[in-house]
Amino acid sequence: MLTATSARTGEIGLAGWTETVKRSALQEMLTLGTGPDFISFALGLPAQELFPSAAIEEAVVATLRSGRHALQYGPPLPALKRQVVALMQERGVRCCPEQVFLTCGAQQGMNLLARVLLAPARGSVLLEEMAYTGFQQVLTPYQPTLLTVPTNPESGIDLASVEALLAGGARPAFMYTVTDGHNPMGVSISQSNRSRLVELARRYRTPIVEDDAYGFLFYEEASPPPLRALDDRWVFYVGSFSKILAPSLRAGWIIVPEELMTYLSVVKEASDIDMATLSHRTISAYLEAGQITEHLKNLRQEYRHRRDAMLRALEEHFPTEARWRRPASGFFIWVDLPAAINTTDLLKSSIAEAQVGFIPGQAFSVNGERGSHSLRLNFSNQPAARIEEGIARLGRLIKKSHA
Amino acid sequence: MLTATSARTGEIGLAGWTETVKRSALQEMLTLGTGPDFISFALGLPAQELFPSAAIEEAVVATLRSGRHALQYGPPLPALKRQVVALMQERGVRCCPEQVFLTCGAQQGMNLLARVLLAPARGSVLLEEMAYTGFQQVLTPYQPTLLTVPTNPESGIDLASVEALLAGGARPAFMYTVTDGHNPMGVSISQSNRSRLVELARRYRTPIVEDDAYGFLFYEEASPPPLRALDDRWVFYVGSFSKILAPSLRAGWIIVPEELMTYLSVVKEASDIDMATLSHRTISAYLEAGQITEHLKNLRQEYRHRRDAMLRALEEHFPTEARWRRPASGFFIWVDLPAAINTTDLLKSSIAEAQVGFIPGQAFSVNGERGSHSLRLNFSNQPAARIEEGIARLGRLIKKSHA
Repeated sequence: MLTATSARTGEIGLAGWTETVKRSALQEMLTLGTGPDFISFALGLPAQELFPSAAIEEAVVATLRSGRHALQYGPPLPALKRQVVALMQERGVRCCPEQVFLTCGAQQGMNLLARVLLAPARGSVLLEEMAYTGFQQVLTPYQPTLLTVPTNPESGIDLASVEALLAGGARPAFMYTVTDGHNPMGVSISQSNRSRLVELARRYRTPIVEDDAYGFLFYEEASPPPLRALDDRWVFYVGSFSKILAPSLRAGWIIVPEELMTYLSVVKEASDIDMATLSHRTISAYLEAGQITEHLKNLRQEYRHRRDAMLRALEEHFPTEARWRRPASGFFIWVDLPAAINTTDLLKSSIAEAQVGFIPGQAFSVNGERGSHSLRLNFSNQPAARIEEGIARLGRLIKKSHA
Repeated sequence: MLTATSARTGEIGLAGWTETVKRSALQEMLTLGTGPDFISFALGLPAQELFPSAAIEEAVVATLRSGRHALQYGPPLPALKRQVVALMQERGVRCCPEQVFLTCGAQQGMNLLARVLLAPARGSVLLEEMAYTGFQQVLTPYQPTLLTVPTNPESGIDLASVEALLAGGARPAFMYTVTDGHNPMGVSISQSNRSRLVELARRYRTPIVEDDAYGFLFYEEASPPPLRALDDRWVFYVGSFSKILAPSLRAGWIIVPEELMTYLSVVKEASDIDMATLSHRTISAYLEAGQITEHLKNLRQEYRHRRDAMLRALEEHFPTEARWRRPASGFFIWVDLPAAINTTDLLKSSIAEAQVGFIPGQAFSVNGERGSHSLRLNFSNQPAARIEEGIARLGRLIKKSHA
């Protein structure tokens, strides 16, 4: 039997979801802009010049010299779980090692939680209209009904909409949100709204998957604790070492109620073996050396500097009709341009004429309809002078296009 | 609404498959037998004293010193793909870098292929009655119909049964087999049967997922090339660095027709980001140094020595009614004991009285019915003297139980 699917692949039959696959705008951007004059604000890359490369080298060498067991199969590392507990205290979260599940990064964390919480082709998920594309990809194979709510640019996920859905009888498998340094919107949930959101989760017995990939990178005096600090039952926290240490180590963690651990372990075992990786051991040795607090302080200082450089450049070079806000955490500034400007079109001329990259807002739109005159700008991956130069070029192009 | 599921987890609703979860016998074994006098033949662990620890240290240090990009996000490593092509030539396989997909190990390789090939709750998979439990776990969320065929102890997967199923109209999404050093049966598919199996795949347009985790570890003069050498369209090859280099590096590869690459990339991206990991870079640096051929030679020599030690010990200490065969590849010897002996019961007394671990055959049985008087013995993870001692203890216990 020849189906449309098998015709695509010369008769090899594939799962149905593959028919809807297209490469994401973010993946396409990875292949663009490698020339020295190209300035990319597209991807959420940390600054590689800030990686603690020498300390990681020391940690991996010490790990390898501690014995050949470091290269062997072995159960998930208890020491790293305890160190995650200590790290979480810096975010105001109290948890115990039995609630910590070690992953290969936040993306895997979300994936494992989705597999535990979602039944294929049934159920629903509540998320914001603008959402991290990697999370949207996690949902694809399950084809859940997507219940979307707006994001308030000042206070984060719109609670009135969440409450209306839940009060109206919706019972999603879970709600997904980014508490601090929202990707792509840049906003952090206001302190009062954090309690209200957790209260809704409790009242309607609907778990929140809290993506805190950027939570340790805050730039104002203090950052309120994440949702997990307010509830240890209905908030499933997803953390990552990618942004605070180094992405290629592939390490992160989840904090969940203890009774979920067996299921996470089964899913992880089937995915790629639930074990202590050399990376996990290396990170544990790095944390043992006690430099993470100082390292985080340095990261916050440099990223604050870059954020402020981008804010100043936007003020100077972007048209007066453009709107943006100062993000308190994370890697991104979200800019709304006049409605006449389509940012997907703008990207093409920006790459060709200005040699500047960004992600058009529409790429994050869950229903594909919103964000057509917005863009996401990353400020973490370029030094201040390049930020100034790139925003100037982009601003000139926008003013020209808009003229 | 309180279901049986939510009652288990204090009202947190979980995906339906979690109701059937029990920890696998192999996972339980991981937590057993850590005392110095305990001898475990249970797990498929490589010998850690053979890990090229110093060379891996050199490779990771060189990688880190090559620049901070080694710690950053970046596309899958072209150099490692080319090196995999060269490595596959040693197995008699011709492929090109565009057909190589890099993974975090063979388990992830099988997982990604299942996601691309299987539609949830539809379709079927053809596999042997005795199959690697990790592969069975991969299938669980999809709930396919399982079409099982016997394994011939001399020639591998039973081709008459495969042909009968396919000729009878069965069209599984794919067939799964281990060509060399079958886990758990130890057998390698005979040379003539390799061609016949591939011919069946072609004739019935049904892909084969070929798990070759042990294929580089052969102990006779020559090992025939894997199935992928005979067909580049209907054989999807899964390779691993875990057994030939080190498991905690978490690295492996898949070889598939080029048109499947986009789908694998999408699934990998959603799983844990499709990128060059520090491990991939380290392995590439290790392979660049050119020591893998010599290393593989050493591994084969030492594992052959251990296999032969176990075969001699079985001959000396096991009852005359016991049956086993000499594996040409891999890590395992499969032993059939007299039908009166239940090996799941035997394991309990073996742990308590003999301080010896193994996996009861039934743990690998797809329908849970077979293998009740068989056991899988691993010979790779103990030096010859410990193998002799452990088999002697186990032999005495079996003779006592059987008396």
